[in-house]
Amino acid sequence: MLVPSEYVDLANRMADVAGAVVLSYFRKKVEIEDKKDASPVTIADRQSEAIMRELINQHAPDHGILGEEYGPENLDAEWVWVLDPIDGTKAFITGKPSFGILIALLHMGKPVLGVIDQPVTAERWVGASGRPTTLNGERVLCRPCDDLSKAYLYATTPDMFHGAEIPAWDKLKNAVKLQRYGADCYAAGLLASGFVDLMVEASLQPYDYLPLVPVIEGAGGVATDWDGEPLSLHSDGRFCAGGDARAHKAALALLNP
Amino acid sequence: MLVPSEYVDLANRMADVAGAVVLSYFRKKVEIEDKKDASPVTIADRQSEAIMRELINQHAPDHGILGEEYGPENLDAEWVWVLDPIDGTKAFITGKPSFGILIALLHMGKPVLGVIDQPVTAERWVGASGRPTTLNGERVLCRPCDDLSKAYLYATTPDMFHGAEIPAWDKLKNAVKLQRYGADCYAAGLLASGFVDLMVEASLQPYDYLPLVPVIEGAGGVATDWDGEPLSLHSDGRFCAGGDARAHKAALALLNP
Repeated sequence: MLVPSEYVDLANRMADVAGAVVLSYFRKKVEIEDKKDASPVTIADRQSEAIMRELINQHAPDHGILGEEYGPENLDAEWVWVLDPIDGTKAFITGKPSFGILIALLHMGKPVLGVIDQPVTAERWVGASGRPTTLNGERVLCRPCDDLSKAYLYATTPDMFHGAEIPAWDKLKNAVKLQRYGADCYAAGLLASGFVDLMVEASLQPYDYLPLVPVIEGAGGVATDWDGEPLSLHSDGRFCAGGDARAHKAALALLNP
Repeated sequence: MLVPSEYVDLANRMADVAGAVVLSYFRKKVEIEDKKDASPVTIADRQSEAIMRELINQHAPDHGILGEEYGPENLDAEWVWVLDPIDGTKAFITGKPSFGILIALLHMGKPVLGVIDQPVTAERWVGASGRPTTLNGERVLCRPCDDLSKAYLYATTPDMFHGAEIPAWDKLKNAVKLQRYGADCYAAGLLASGFVDLMVEASLQPYDYLPLVPVIEGAGGVATDWDGEPLSLHSDGRFCAGGDARAHKAALALLNP
Protein backbone atom coordinates (compact mmCIF):
# COMPACT_ATOMS: atom_id res chain seq x y z
CA MET A 1 0.00 0.00 0.00
CA LEU A 2 0.99 3.62 -0.49
CA VAL A 3 0.62 5.52 2.78
CA PRO A 4 -1.35 8.76 2.15
CA SER A 5 1.09 11.66 2.03
CA GLU A 6 -1.04 13.63 4.50
CA TYR A 7 -0.18 11.01 7.13
CA VAL A 8 3.51 11.28 6.31
CA ASP A 9 3.21 15.06 6.67
CA LEU A 10 1.39 14.67 9.98
CA ALA A 11 4.11 12.33 11.28
CA ASN A 12 6.77 14.86 10.30
CA ARG A 13 4.86 17.65 12.02
CA MET A 14 4.53 15.49 15.15
CA ALA A 15 8.28 14.86 15.14
CA ASP A 16 8.93 18.59 14.68
CA VAL A 17 6.95 19.64 17.74
CA ALA A 18 7.95 16.68 19.90
CA GLY A 19 11.59 17.27 18.98
CA ALA A 20 11.38 20.91 20.02
CA VAL A 21 9.87 19.94 23.40
CA VAL A 22 12.44 17.22 24.01
CA LEU A 23 15.36 19.45 23.01
CA SER A 24 14.21 22.14 25.41
CA TYR A 25 14.71 19.67 28.29
CA PHE A 26 17.92 18.02 27.04
CA ARG A 27 20.78 18.44 29.54
CA LYS A 28 18.59 20.60 31.74
CA LYS A 29 18.10 19.71 35.37
CA VAL A 30 14.62 18.16 35.46
CA GLU A 31 12.89 16.28 38.22
CA ILE A 32 13.13 12.59 37.36
CA GLU A 33 10.14 10.46 38.31
CA ASP A 34 10.36 6.71 38.65
CA LYS A 35 7.73 4.62 36.92
CA LYS A 36 6.54 1.36 38.35
CA ASP A 37 9.08 -0.55 36.26
CA ALA A 38 11.83 1.76 37.59
CA SER A 39 12.78 3.18 34.24
CA PRO A 40 13.21 6.94 34.49
CA VAL A 41 10.61 9.08 32.85
CA THR A 42 11.09 12.76 32.47
CA ILE A 43 8.68 15.61 32.18
CA ALA A 44 9.89 15.93 28.60
CA ASP A 45 8.58 12.43 27.89
CA ARG A 46 5.04 13.34 28.92
CA GLN A 47 4.94 16.73 27.24
CA SER A 48 6.35 15.25 24.04
CA GLU A 49 3.63 12.58 23.91
CA ALA A 50 0.85 15.00 24.88
CA ILE A 51 1.70 17.37 22.06
CA MET A 52 1.83 14.53 19.52
CA ARG A 53 -1.57 13.24 20.72
CA GLU A 54 -3.01 16.70 20.35
CA LEU A 55 -1.92 16.86 16.72
CA ILE A 56 -3.43 13.44 16.00
CA ASN A 57 -6.71 14.35 17.66
CA GLN A 58 -6.79 17.58 15.66
CA HIS A 59 -5.96 16.18 12.23
CA ALA A 60 -7.08 12.55 12.42
CA PRO A 61 -9.66 12.32 15.22
CA ASP A 62 -10.87 8.86 14.12
CA HIS A 63 -7.39 7.32 14.44
CA GLY A 64 -6.40 5.22 17.44
CA ILE A 65 -3.37 5.97 19.67
CA LEU A 66 -1.06 3.80 21.74
CA GLY A 67 1.62 5.71 23.62
CA GLU A 68 4.14 4.96 26.33
CA GLU A 69 2.91 7.60 28.75
CA TYR A 70 -0.88 7.79 28.47
CA GLY A 71 -3.64 5.23 28.05
CA PRO A 72 -4.62 3.56 24.77
CA GLU A 73 -7.35 5.23 22.67
CA ASN A 74 -9.48 3.52 20.06
CA LEU A 75 -7.12 0.63 19.26
CA ASP A 76 -9.72 -1.01 16.99
CA ALA A 77 -9.50 1.85 14.48
CA GLU A 78 -8.30 1.21 10.92
CA TRP A 79 -5.33 3.52 11.55
CA VAL A 80 -3.51 3.48 14.90
CA TRP A 81 -0.55 5.67 15.91
CA VAL A 82 2.07 4.18 18.21
CA LEU A 83 4.24 6.71 20.07
CA ASP A 84 7.41 6.56 22.10
CA PRO A 85 8.04 10.20 23.01
CA ILE A 86 11.59 9.44 24.18
CA ASP A 87 12.98 6.04 23.33
CA GLY A 88 16.16 5.67 25.37
CA THR A 89 15.25 7.73 28.42
CA LYS A 90 18.42 6.51 30.16
CA ALA A 91 20.52 7.92 27.32
CA PHE A 92 18.47 11.11 27.48
CA ILE A 93 18.94 11.72 31.20
CA THR A 94 22.66 11.07 30.97
CA GLY A 95 22.98 13.60 28.14
CA LYS A 96 23.81 11.13 25.35
CA PRO A 97 22.19 11.80 21.96
CA SER A 98 21.32 8.23 21.01
CA PHE A 99 17.70 8.52 22.21
CA GLY A 100 14.93 9.21 19.75
CA ILE A 101 11.34 10.20 19.23
CA LEU A 102 9.60 7.19 17.72
CA ILE A 103 6.36 7.33 15.74
CA ALA A 104 4.58 4.48 13.97
CA LEU A 105 1.33 4.37 12.09
CA LEU A 106 -0.40 0.98 11.82
CA HIS A 107 -2.91 0.13 9.11
CA MET A 108 -5.11 -2.78 10.14
CA GLY A 109 -2.46 -3.68 12.70
CA LYS A 110 0.50 -3.59 10.30
CA PRO A 111 3.20 -0.90 10.71
CA VAL A 112 3.21 1.08 7.44
CA LEU A 113 4.84 4.35 8.52
CA GLY A 114 7.75 4.89 10.91
CA VAL A 115 9.79 7.84 12.15
CA ILE A 116 13.04 7.83 14.14
CA ASP A 117 13.93 11.40 15.11
CA GLN A 118 17.15 12.39 16.90
CA PRO A 119 16.68 16.08 17.68
CA VAL A 120 20.21 16.83 18.99
CA THR A 121 22.03 15.65 15.88
CA ALA A 122 19.03 16.79 13.79
CA GLU A 123 18.62 13.43 12.07
CA ARG A 124 15.24 12.06 11.05
CA TRP A 125 14.67 8.72 9.36
CA VAL A 126 11.24 8.30 7.76
CA GLY A 127 9.99 5.04 6.30
CA ALA A 128 6.58 4.51 4.71
CA SER A 129 5.17 1.61 2.69
CA GLY A 130 5.40 2.30 -1.02
CA ARG A 131 8.15 4.90 -0.56
CA PRO A 132 11.92 4.67 -0.02
CA THR A 133 13.23 5.37 3.48
CA THR A 134 14.90 8.76 3.85
CA LEU A 135 17.32 10.39 6.28
CA ASN A 136 16.59 14.13 6.33
CA GLY A 137 14.92 13.77 2.94
CA GLU A 138 17.76 11.82 1.27
CA ARG A 139 17.16 8.21 0.30
CA VAL A 140 19.10 5.65 2.36
CA LEU A 141 19.72 1.96 1.74
CA CYS A 142 20.86 -0.98 3.84
CA ARG A 143 24.11 -2.54 2.70
CA PRO A 144 24.63 -6.13 1.57
CA CYS A 145 25.93 -8.61 4.14
CA ASP A 146 25.91 -12.22 3.01
CA ASP A 147 27.52 -13.79 6.06
CA LEU A 148 27.47 -13.33 9.86
CA SER A 149 31.27 -13.27 9.93
CA LYS A 150 31.12 -9.89 8.17
CA ALA A 151 28.27 -8.41 10.19
CA TYR A 152 28.28 -5.39 12.52
CA LEU A 153 25.76 -6.02 15.31
CA TYR A 154 24.11 -3.63 17.78
CA ALA A 155 22.03 -4.17 20.92
CA THR A 156 21.12 -1.67 23.62
CA THR A 157 22.47 -3.69 26.55
CA PRO A 158 23.11 -7.36 27.33
CA ASP A 159 21.00 -6.89 30.46
CA MET A 160 17.79 -6.92 28.41
CA PHE A 161 18.28 -10.63 27.65
CA HIS A 162 16.89 -13.20 30.10
CA GLY A 163 16.88 -16.99 30.47
CA ALA A 164 17.51 -18.80 27.19
CA GLU A 165 17.98 -15.46 25.45
CA ILE A 166 21.37 -15.04 27.15
CA PRO A 167 23.20 -18.00 25.55
CA ALA A 168 21.41 -17.28 22.25
CA TRP A 169 22.70 -13.71 22.30
CA ASP A 170 26.21 -14.87 23.24
CA LYS A 171 26.26 -17.29 20.32
CA LEU A 172 25.26 -14.56 17.88
CA LYS A 173 27.66 -12.02 19.39
CA ASN A 174 30.55 -14.45 18.97
CA ALA A 175 29.63 -15.16 15.34
CA VAL A 176 29.77 -11.58 14.06
CA LYS A 177 32.69 -9.39 13.07
CA LEU A 178 31.91 -6.48 15.38
CA GLN A 179 29.44 -5.97 18.22
CA ARG A 180 28.55 -2.81 20.11
CA TYR A 181 26.07 -1.77 22.77
CA GLY A 182 24.29 1.41 23.61
CA ALA A 183 22.83 2.97 20.47
CA ASP A 184 19.15 2.56 21.45
CA CYS A 185 16.79 3.21 18.49
CA TYR A 186 19.58 5.10 16.73
CA ALA A 187 21.00 1.68 15.75
CA ALA A 188 17.97 1.12 13.51
CA GLY A 189 18.71 4.37 11.70
CA LEU A 190 22.34 3.31 11.25
CA LEU A 191 21.14 -0.04 9.91
CA ALA A 192 18.80 1.68 7.41
CA SER A 193 21.73 3.90 6.36
CA GLY A 194 23.98 0.91 5.69
CA PHE A 195 26.49 1.21 8.55
CA VAL A 196 25.16 -1.59 10.77
CA ASP A 197 24.07 -5.04 9.59
CA LEU A 198 22.11 -6.46 12.52
CA MET A 199 20.14 -5.12 15.47
CA VAL A 200 18.86 -7.50 18.12
CA GLU A 201 16.78 -6.56 21.15
CA ALA A 202 14.49 -8.18 23.71
CA SER A 203 12.10 -7.06 26.45
CA LEU A 204 10.75 -4.33 24.16
CA GLN A 205 7.30 -2.77 24.11
CA PRO A 206 5.32 -2.23 20.87
CA TYR A 207 6.15 1.50 20.87
CA ASP A 208 9.87 0.57 21.00
CA TYR A 209 9.91 -1.74 17.97
CA LEU A 210 6.95 -0.93 15.67
CA PRO A 211 8.28 2.49 14.53
CA LEU A 212 11.56 0.86 13.46
CA VAL A 213 9.94 -1.62 11.05
CA PRO A 214 8.90 0.69 8.15
CA VAL A 215 12.22 2.58 8.40
CA ILE A 216 14.16 -0.66 7.98
CA GLU A 217 11.86 -2.23 5.38
CA GLY A 218 11.85 0.91 3.22
CA ALA A 219 15.66 0.78 3.14
CA GLY A 220 15.64 -2.81 1.91
CA GLY A 221 16.05 -4.51 5.29
CA VAL A 222 14.04 -7.04 7.26
CA ALA A 223 12.63 -6.71 10.79
CA THR A 224 10.84 -9.53 12.60
CA ASP A 225 10.56 -11.18 15.99
CA TRP A 226 13.07 -13.94 16.86
CA ASP A 227 10.84 -16.53 15.16
CA GLY A 228 10.95 -14.61 11.90
CA GLU A 229 7.31 -13.56 12.30
CA PRO A 230 6.08 -10.07 11.37
CA LEU A 231 5.99 -7.60 14.25
CA SER A 232 2.64 -6.45 15.59
CA LEU A 233 1.11 -5.00 18.76
CA HIS A 234 1.01 -8.56 20.07
CA SER A 235 4.63 -9.64 19.49
CA ASP A 236 6.66 -10.88 22.46
CA GLY A 237 9.12 -7.97 22.59
CA ARG A 238 11.97 -9.77 20.84
CA PHE A 239 13.30 -7.93 17.83
CA CYS A 240 15.76 -8.93 15.10
CA ALA A 241 16.52 -6.68 12.14
CA GLY A 242 18.94 -7.24 9.30
CA GLY A 243 20.02 -4.98 6.47
CA ASP A 244 20.39 -8.07 4.29
CA ALA A 245 17.88 -10.95 4.46
CA ARG A 246 20.76 -13.46 4.40
CA ALA A 247 22.37 -12.07 7.56
CA HIS A 248 18.94 -11.77 9.17
CA LYS A 249 18.16 -15.44 8.45
CA ALA A 250 21.54 -16.56 9.77
CA ALA A 251 21.03 -14.50 12.95
CA LEU A 252 17.60 -16.06 13.57
CA ALA A 253 19.11 -19.52 13.18
CA LEU A 254 21.44 -18.80 16.13
CA LEU A 255 18.90 -16.90 18.24
CA ASN A 256 16.19 -19.52 17.84
CA PRO A 257 17.82 -22.86 17.05
CA MET B 1 50.90 24.28 37.70
CA LEU B 2 49.33 26.57 35.12
CA VAL B 3 49.66 25.05 31.65
CA PRO B 4 51.08 27.68 29.23
CA SER B 5 48.24 29.07 27.14
CA GLU B 6 50.24 28.50 23.95
CA TYR B 7 49.97 24.75 24.62
CA VAL B 8 46.20 25.02 25.16
CA ASP B 9 45.99 26.92 21.86
CA LEU B 10 48.10 24.29 20.12
CA ALA B 11 45.85 21.51 21.46
CA ASN B 12 42.79 23.35 20.17
CA ARG B 13 44.39 23.81 16.77
CA MET B 14 45.26 20.09 16.69
CA ALA B 15 41.65 19.20 17.49
CA ASP B 16 40.43 21.59 14.77
CA VAL B 17 42.47 20.00 12.00
CA ALA B 18 42.06 16.42 13.23
CA GLY B 19 38.31 16.96 13.56
CA ALA B 20 38.07 18.22 9.98
CA VAL B 21 39.95 15.16 8.71
CA VAL B 22 37.87 12.74 10.75
CA LEU B 23 34.57 14.38 9.75
CA SER B 24 35.49 14.13 6.07
CA TYR B 25 35.57 10.33 6.44
CA PHE B 26 32.56 9.93 8.75
CA ARG B 27 29.87 7.72 7.19
CA LYS B 28 31.88 7.49 3.99
CA LYS B 29 32.80 4.11 2.57
CA VAL B 30 36.46 3.71 3.51
CA GLU B 31 38.66 0.68 3.27
CA ILE B 32 38.88 -0.78 6.76
CA GLU B 33 42.20 -2.36 7.68
CA ASP B 34 42.54 -4.83 10.50
CA LYS B 35 45.29 -4.25 13.02
CA LYS B 36 47.03 -7.10 14.73
CA ASP B 37 44.63 -6.85 17.70
CA ALA B 38 41.69 -6.96 15.24
CA SER B 39 40.32 -3.55 16.16
CA PRO B 40 39.37 -1.68 13.01
CA VAL B 41 41.52 1.24 12.04
CA THR B 42 40.47 3.59 9.34
CA ILE B 43 42.41 5.79 7.02
CA ALA B 44 40.91 8.69 8.93
CA ASP B 45 42.66 7.46 12.08
CA ARG B 46 46.09 7.64 10.49
CA GLN B 47 45.57 10.94 8.70
CA SER B 48 44.17 12.50 11.85
CA GLU B 49 47.23 11.49 13.90
CA ALA B 50 49.68 12.47 11.16
CA ILE B 51 48.30 15.98 10.94
CA MET B 52 48.41 16.41 14.72
CA ARG B 53 52.02 15.21 14.83
CA GLU B 54 52.92 17.67 12.11
CA LEU B 55 51.55 20.55 14.19
CA ILE B 56 53.49 19.42 17.26
CA ASN B 57 56.73 19.06 15.29
CA GLN B 58 56.17 22.52 13.85
CA HIS B 59 55.29 24.40 17.03
CA ALA B 60 56.96 22.35 19.77
CA PRO B 61 59.74 20.32 18.14
CA ASP B 62 61.36 19.43 21.49
CA HIS B 63 58.18 17.79 22.83
CA GLY B 64 57.73 14.02 22.85
CA ILE B 65 54.80 12.20 21.19
CA LEU B 66 53.00 8.95 21.91
CA GLY B 67 50.20 8.13 19.48
CA GLU B 68 48.03 5.13 18.72
CA GLU B 69 49.04 4.84 15.09
CA TYR B 70 52.72 5.75 14.80
CA GLY B 71 55.79 5.03 16.90
CA PRO B 72 56.78 6.88 20.08
CA GLU B 73 59.06 9.93 19.74
CA ASN B 74 61.23 11.40 22.48
CA LEU B 75 59.25 10.06 25.47
CA ASP B 76 61.90 11.34 27.92
CA ALA B 77 61.06 14.96 27.06
CA GLU B 78 59.70 17.31 29.74
CA TRP B 79 56.49 17.66 27.72
CA VAL B 80 54.94 14.66 25.96
CA TRP B 81 51.79 14.66 23.83
CA VAL B 82 49.58 11.56 23.91
CA LEU B 83 47.21 11.19 20.95
CA ASP B 84 44.25 8.99 20.12
CA PRO B 85 43.16 10.22 16.70
CA ILE B 86 39.85 8.33 16.90
CA ASP B 87 38.91 6.87 20.27
CA GLY B 88 35.98 4.56 19.63
CA THR B 89 36.80 3.38 16.11
CA LYS B 90 33.99 0.81 16.33
CA ALA B 91 31.50 3.59 16.99
CA PHE B 92 33.08 5.58 14.15
CA ILE B 93 32.80 2.84 11.54
CA THR B 94 29.20 2.12 12.49
CA GLY B 95 28.31 5.80 12.08
CA LYS B 96 27.64 6.53 15.77
CA PRO B 97 28.89 9.92 17.07
CA SER B 98 30.20 8.79 20.46
CA PHE B 99 33.81 8.50 19.25
CA GLY B 100 36.26 11.30 19.92
CA ILE B 101 39.62 12.79 19.14
CA LEU B 102 41.67 12.57 22.33
CA ILE B 103 44.70 14.72 23.11
CA ALA B 104 46.73 14.81 26.32
CA LEU B 105 49.83 16.75 27.26
CA LEU B 106 52.01 15.31 30.01
CA HIS B 107 54.41 17.38 32.08
CA MET B 108 57.09 15.20 33.68
CA GLY B 109 54.78 12.23 33.12
CA LYS B 110 51.69 13.80 34.68
CA PRO B 111 48.65 14.60 32.46
CA VAL B 112 48.10 18.36 32.76
CA LEU B 113 46.08 19.11 29.61
CA GLY B 114 43.32 17.05 28.00
CA VAL B 115 40.96 17.43 25.05
CA ILE B 116 37.91 15.33 24.14
CA ASP B 117 36.58 16.43 20.76
CA GLN B 118 33.38 15.08 19.15
CA PRO B 119 33.37 16.61 15.67
CA VAL B 120 29.87 15.45 14.57
CA THR B 121 28.01 17.04 17.48
CA ALA B 122 30.65 19.82 17.53
CA GLU B 123 31.41 19.38 21.23
CA ARG B 124 34.87 19.91 22.67
CA TRP B 125 35.80 19.48 26.31
CA VAL B 126 39.13 21.02 27.32
CA GLY B 127 40.74 20.55 30.72
CA ALA B 128 44.06 22.03 31.83
CA SER B 129 45.73 22.24 35.23
CA GLY B 130 45.13 25.60 36.83
CA ARG B 131 42.06 26.31 34.67
CA PRO B 132 38.41 25.20 34.83
CA THR B 133 37.29 22.56 32.33
CA THR B 134 35.17 23.92 29.50
CA LEU B 135 32.72 22.54 26.94
CA ASN B 136 32.88 24.71 23.82
CA GLY B 137 34.33 27.47 25.95
CA GLU B 138 31.70 27.33 28.72
CA ARG B 139 32.74 26.17 32.16
CA VAL B 140 31.36 22.76 33.20
CA LEU B 141 31.25 21.08 36.61
CA CYS B 142 30.71 17.54 37.85
CA ARG B 143 27.63 17.11 40.04
CA PRO B 144 27.58 15.92 43.64
CA CYS B 145 26.83 12.23 44.27
CA ASP B 146 27.31 11.11 47.85
CA ASP B 147 26.18 7.52 47.46
CA LEU B 148 26.45 4.71 44.89
CA SER B 149 22.70 4.12 45.10
CA LYS B 150 22.22 7.50 43.38
CA ALA B 151 24.97 7.09 40.77
CA TYR B 152 24.69 6.93 36.97
CA LEU B 153 27.48 4.67 35.68
CA TYR B 154 28.93 4.27 32.17
CA ALA B 155 31.30 1.72 30.63
CA THR B 156 32.03 1.08 26.98
CA THR B 157 31.21 -2.63 27.02
CA PRO B 158 31.19 -5.45 29.59
CA ASP B 159 33.44 -7.41 27.23
CA MET B 160 36.45 -5.28 28.19
CA PHE B 161 36.48 -6.84 31.68
CA HIS B 162 38.41 -10.07 32.22
CA GLY B 163 38.99 -12.52 35.08
CA ALA B 164 38.39 -10.99 38.51
CA GLU B 165 37.30 -7.75 36.85
CA ILE B 166 34.03 -9.38 35.78
CA PRO B 167 32.54 -10.03 39.25
CA ALA B 168 33.94 -6.70 40.46
CA TRP B 169 32.15 -4.90 37.63
CA ASP B 170 28.94 -6.84 38.28
CA LYS B 171 29.02 -5.84 41.94
CA LEU B 172 29.42 -2.18 41.07
CA LYS B 173 26.80 -2.31 38.32
CA ASN B 174 24.29 -3.78 40.75
CA ALA B 175 25.00 -1.10 43.37
CA VAL B 176 24.24 1.95 41.22
CA LYS B 177 20.96 3.57 40.22
CA LEU B 178 21.48 3.46 36.47
CA GLN B 179 24.05 1.80 34.23
CA ARG B 180 24.60 2.20 30.50
CA TYR B 181 27.11 0.99 27.93
CA GLY B 182 28.46 2.38 24.71
CA ALA B 183 29.44 6.01 25.15
CA ASP B 184 33.20 5.53 24.65
CA CYS B 185 35.20 8.64 25.66
CA TYR B 186 32.04 10.73 25.35
CA ALA B 187 31.08 9.38 28.80
CA ALA B 188 33.98 11.33 30.33
CA GLY B 189 32.62 14.52 28.80
CA LEU B 190 29.17 13.76 30.18
CA LEU B 191 30.75 13.13 33.60
CA ALA B 192 32.61 16.46 33.47
CA SER B 193 29.33 18.14 32.50
CA GLY B 194 27.49 16.66 35.49
CA PHE B 195 25.18 14.15 33.79
CA VAL B 196 27.07 10.96 34.66
CA ASP B 197 28.58 10.11 38.07
CA LEU B 198 30.93 7.23 37.37
CA MET B 199 32.89 5.88 34.41
CA VAL B 200 34.71 2.56 34.71
CA GLU B 201 36.85 0.96 32.04
CA ALA B 202 39.54 -1.70 31.68
CA SER B 203 41.95 -2.95 29.01
CA LEU B 204 42.70 0.66 28.01
CA GLN B 205 45.87 2.09 26.52
CA PRO B 206 47.50 5.31 27.81
CA TYR B 207 46.13 7.31 24.83
CA ASP B 208 42.62 6.13 25.81
CA TYR B 209 42.70 7.27 29.43
CA LEU B 210 45.32 10.02 29.90
CA PRO B 211 43.41 12.68 27.89
CA LEU B 212 40.33 12.15 30.09
CA VAL B 213 42.12 12.94 33.36
CA PRO B 214 42.59 16.75 33.10
CA VAL B 215 39.06 17.15 31.67
CA ILE B 216 37.58 15.35 34.68
CA GLU B 217 39.88 16.91 37.30
CA GLY B 218 39.27 20.44 35.99
CA ALA B 219 35.53 19.88 36.43
CA GLY B 220 35.97 18.84 40.07
CA GLY B 221 36.08 15.08 39.53
CA VAL B 222 38.58 12.34 40.26
CA ALA B 223 40.18 9.87 37.84
CA THR B 224 42.51 7.07 38.95
CA ASP B 225 43.27 3.43 38.30
CA TRP B 226 41.27 0.79 40.21
CA ASP B 227 43.73 1.02 43.14
CA GLY B 228 43.10 4.74 43.49
CA GLU B 229 46.57 5.54 42.11
CA PRO B 230 47.19 8.46 39.73
CA LEU B 231 47.13 7.53 36.05
CA SER B 232 50.37 7.59 34.08
CA LEU B 233 51.90 6.08 30.97
CA HIS B 234 52.61 3.01 33.07
CA SER B 235 49.16 2.33 34.55
CA ASP B 236 47.57 -1.09 34.00
CA GLY B 237 44.72 0.10 31.74
CA ARG B 238 42.04 0.09 34.45
CA PHE B 239 40.23 3.38 34.80
CA CYS B 240 37.74 4.66 37.38
CA ALA B 241 36.43 8.21 37.33
CA GLY B 242 33.93 9.86 39.62
CA GLY B 243 32.31 13.26 39.51
CA ASP B 244 32.23 13.23 43.32
CA ALA B 245 35.15 11.84 45.36
CA ARG B 246 32.68 10.04 47.65
CA ALA B 247 31.12 8.03 44.81
CA HIS B 248 34.59 7.38 43.37
CA LYS B 249 35.84 6.01 46.70
CA ALA B 250 32.77 3.80 47.10
CA ALA B 251 33.21 2.48 43.55
CA LEU B 252 36.86 1.60 44.20
CA ALA B 253 35.86 -0.28 47.35
CA LEU B 254 33.69 -2.59 45.23
CA LEU B 255 36.07 -2.87 42.28
CA ASN B 256 39.08 -3.63 44.43
CA PRO B 257 37.94 -5.10 47.72
